[in-house]
Amino acid sequence: MYTLYFATGACSLASHITLEEIGADYERRRVEFDAMEHQSNEYRALNPKARVPTLITPHGPLTETPAILAYLAQSHPEVALAPLDDPYAFGQLQAINSYLCSTVHVAHAHSSRGNRWVDDQSSIEAMKRKVPETMTACFQLMEDTMIQGPWVFGDNYTVADPYLFTVTRWAVRDRVDITQFPKVSEHHRLIGERPAVKNVLEIEAL
Amino acid sequence: MYTLYFATGACSLASHITLEEIGADYERRRVEFDAMEHQSNEYRALNPKARVPTLITPHGPLTETPAILAYLAQSHPEVALAPLDDPYAFGQLQAINSYLCSTVHVAHAHSSRGNRWVDDQSSIEAMKRKVPETMTACFQLMEDTMIQGPWVFGDNYTVADPYLFTVTRWAVRDRVDITQFPKVSEHHRLIGERPAVKNVLEIEAL
Repeated sequence: MYTLYFATGACSLASHITLEEIGADYERRRVEFDAMEHQSNEYRALNPKARVPTLITPHGPLTETPAILAYLAQSHPEVALAPLDDPYAFGQLQAINSYLCSTVHVAHAHSSRGNRWVDDQSSIEAMKRKVPETMTACFQLMEDTMIQGPWVFGDNYTVADPYLFTVTRWAVRDRVDITQFPKVSEHHRLIGERPAVKNVLEIEAL
Repeated sequence: MYTLYFATGACSLASHITLEEIGADYERRRVEFDAMEHQSNEYRALNPKARVPTLITPHGPLTETPAILAYLAQSHPEVALAPLDDPYAFGQLQAINSYLCSTVHVAHAHSSRGNRWVDDQSSIEAMKRKVPETMTACFQLMEDTMIQGPWVFGDNYTVADPYLFTVTRWAVRDRVDITQFPKVSEHHRLIGERPAVKNVLEIEAL
C-alpha cells in the first residue's frame, strides 16, 4: 500500500503513471501549490524539501523522481520496469533519469521558478527568454542519443518512458516544437495510447 | 578495468573516490576544460553531454554521477557501498544522491555556469549574488535531514558520502560558512582522513 503526493502536471506524473502500470494498491493525494499546501508543516514532515512527488511506502516516505522510479521497479520485479539483474543496463536507465531530473527539469524550471536562483524581475525574464533554446537542446540530445524506439530501451518499456513523456509534455509551454524531433514525437504519441497513461491523465486533469 | 574521465574539483571527484575505495583496476584521464577538451569530437563520442564524469566500463560508457555511483556499488557488492538488498534503503540513498545532483550541484552551478540559463552579464551577476543563500539552504537541509553520523547512513559508509563531501568542498567558493553546520563539518573532517580520499585529492591536485 502506497500513498502518492502529486501535483497536476508536475514531474510527479512519472511516478503516478508507474504506480498505475504496476497495478499497485495506492492512494493519491493532490498537493495544491496555489494554496501553499506543499509549505504546510504536515507536508514538510513527510518531505522537508516541500516539493512533489512524495511516495509514502510501507517503510516510510521517499522523495526524488529517479529514486522513486527505481524503488518501484525494484519492489515489483514481476512487472519488469527496469533491467534489475544487469548493473550496466540499470546504470544506463538511471543515467537517463538523472539527466531528465538534473538537466531537463532544471532547464524547464527556469521558465516559472526563476526566483529559486535570482531575486530581480529582469533576471527572471532573462531566464524565461532562454528556455526555448535550452529545452530545444535537451530534446535534440534525447532525439539523438536516448530513444531506441518504440520505447527508450527498445522493446522494453521501463520507468524511463513515463519520465521522458512527462518532460515532453512541457515542450509546448516551453515553446519547443517537438515535431522537429521524430523519435520524441512518436514516443509521445505511442505512450499516450497506454491505458495506464490515459487513466492517470484523466485523474490528474480533474 | 575502468577508465574515469574527470576534471579537477568537479563532481567527478565522487566517482574518483569511489573507484579508489573499491580498489578498482582503473585508469584516469583528466579532461582540461580550459583547453575545451570536453567539447572535442573524441570526448563527445563517449559523452554527448560534454560533461564529466564519464566512466568507461567493460560494457561501455556511463554518465551522470548518481548512475555511476549506484553502478559501482552494484558491481562491487563485496565492498558494501550501498544497501543493495533493501529497495527502500537503496531508494533513500538514491534520493540523497539525486538531491545532491539536481538541487545542490545546480545551485552551485549558478555561480560559474550562469550562461547555461541566461545570456546577459547582468543576470549572470544576479545569479552569482544569490548562490550563498541557495547553497546555505542546501547545507541546512543536509544538516537537518541527511547525515546520521558519522556517515550519511550512520555506521555504513556508502557512495552518498564522497558525493556529499564533494559538494561540501564547494562551500568556501560559494561563500557558505559550514562551521554553522556541525554535522556537515564533522562529516567533512572525518572523510578527509580516509586513505582513499587523501590519495585522490593528492592526484587531482597535481
